[in-house]
Amino acid sequence: DGELYQNGTFIDKIIEMNLRNSVFADCTADHFIALRYEDIIMAKIAVVTCNKIANTLGMDYYHKLHRQAVSQHVPFLYETNVGAALPVICLIRQMRLCGDTPERVEACLSGTLNYVFSRYDGQTPFHRIVEEASSLGYAEPDPMADISGKDVMRKTLILARECGMDIEESQVNTASFLPPQWPCEEHFRSLYLESRQKEGTLRYVSTIDNRGVKAGLKVVPREHPFSGLRGTDVSVILYSRLYPNGLRVEGAGAGGRQTASGLINDILQCV
Amino acid sequence: DGELYQNGTFIDKIIEMNLRNSVFADCTADHFIALRYEDIIMAKIAVVTCNKIANTLGMDYYHKLHRQAVSQHVPFLYETNVGAALPVICLIRQMRLCGDTPERVEACLSGTLNYVFSRYDGQTPFHRIVEEASSLGYAEPDPMADISGKDVMRKTLILARECGMDIEESQVNTASFLPPQWPCEEHFRSLYLESRQKEGTLRYVSTIDNRGVKAGLKVVPREHPFSGLRGTDVSVILYSRLYPNGLRVEGAGAGGRQTASGLINDILQCV
Repeated sequence: DGELYQNGTFIDKIIEMNLRNSVFADCTADHFIALRYEDIIMAKIAVVTCNKIANTLGMDYYHKLHRQAVSQHVPFLYETNVGAALPVICLIRQMRLCGDTPERVEACLSGTLNYVFSRYDGQTPFHRIVEEASSLGYAEPDPMADISGKDVMRKTLILARECGMDIEESQVNTASFLPPQWPCEEHFRSLYLESRQKEGTLRYVSTIDNRGVKAGLKVVPREHPFSGLRGTDVSVILYSRLYPNGLRVEGAGAGGRQTASGLINDILQCV
Repeated sequence: DGELYQNGTFIDKIIEMNLRNSVFADCTADHFIALRYEDIIMAKIAVVTCNKIANTLGMDYYHKLHRQAVSQHVPFLYETNVGAALPVICLIRQMRLCGDTPERVEACLSGTLNYVFSRYDGQTPFHRIVEEASSLGYAEPDPMADISGKDVMRKTLILARECGMDIEESQVNTASFLPPQWPCEEHFRSLYLESRQKEGTLRYVSTIDNRGVKAGLKVVPREHPFSGLRGTDVSVILYSRLYPNGLRVEGAGAGGRQTASGLINDILQCV
């Protein structure tokens, strides 16, 4: 019930009811709900979320939530924070539990940006393709949130933290590829022509290694796995001692149904 | 202790001890041990195994073990049956739990065969490269078990059953690429030249769909993801309603350390 939620009493209510094996699933992108996870976990209620806010606030809150989840023996699961239902967070966790750690992560995390850059050929104006992605339901309601790279930055931050890095949002090195004026077709056409000249494909790539965490537009060579991504598919490659050539996961990384199936997987792990 | 095992008393002993949260991890390829899983599960002891035997015997035994594991509330986990620690079995399970099912599986499952066909260029004799794979520890002690396709057949059968198919070993359609005489360099050189002519790469590919289950040597085009597999990497692509372009997992699918880490993951899920 919307009203119950609006004044926060829905969460008070489930804490008060104190039912066994409760799972709180957050399918919003709401800041205030993310700040209530602490209360929920302390009440021994599992939290499953596709909301990226809690994991991208300060490290203090991040550590606090994770520590509390452990001490309360309560699952806090957020596989859908990165790549919808694709197994990314759980793979990093499994690696680390076995004494292996990703030494380097390369990822192409935005289904929207992959779609847009795959479609753009310098003919149809760039902003038209963004509108198209939006009307097909691939992009956020405000597609600028997607193409500004803000969403990718959050996913990259979450992956870096999952790899064990103590890192704040401000330390993720992102370079926006947007022109000061929007739309500015000339800007995008020159990016496209540059990629053609280098015989590559434009991709928004995240990189995590001991030199830092960054995300930005790159021209990847045709033979690189990111170049061949289709539709809204995303790709994550984890390099570690056991996976020197990389452990690669690839597939639909956006979409309501995919995210819902990822949430169900997480919920099933709680019970 | 080898002797304890030899007369089967090791298993009797752990059943008799009846300790809480016991996990029986089978790292052998032994037929007789696989036949004892039933007793072990009935004693409420979890079974974690990289041994493919139990899951490739008749459907009767397969169904029996899986039913008993459910009714005894005991984990029976075998992620390492296919692709070492790569998440393949668990992905198929998760898909099915969410109401999605793989409609088609394409896989390149033998690290050994991938290594051999990537190295073979018609110059160095084929059997030398097989020996090389063997001495590098990639192949089974008897490399013929690998290159005969027997091992791939078992993995393919296990994947098909995991997808929900009732299928026996005899129904897996495998075509051996081995010549009647071994070694017969002429045979392999002509296979290689054919692949060159078609501008592709030789790969031993498994396919599972509603038309059946098969595994055999194929010439895959250069742009196909299987063509670019490096070293002993393997690849599995699951196609389903939610993943029309495929959900792809790729990486080191063989090796003692990788398999050990997969076993540890499974054991950690039991406790």
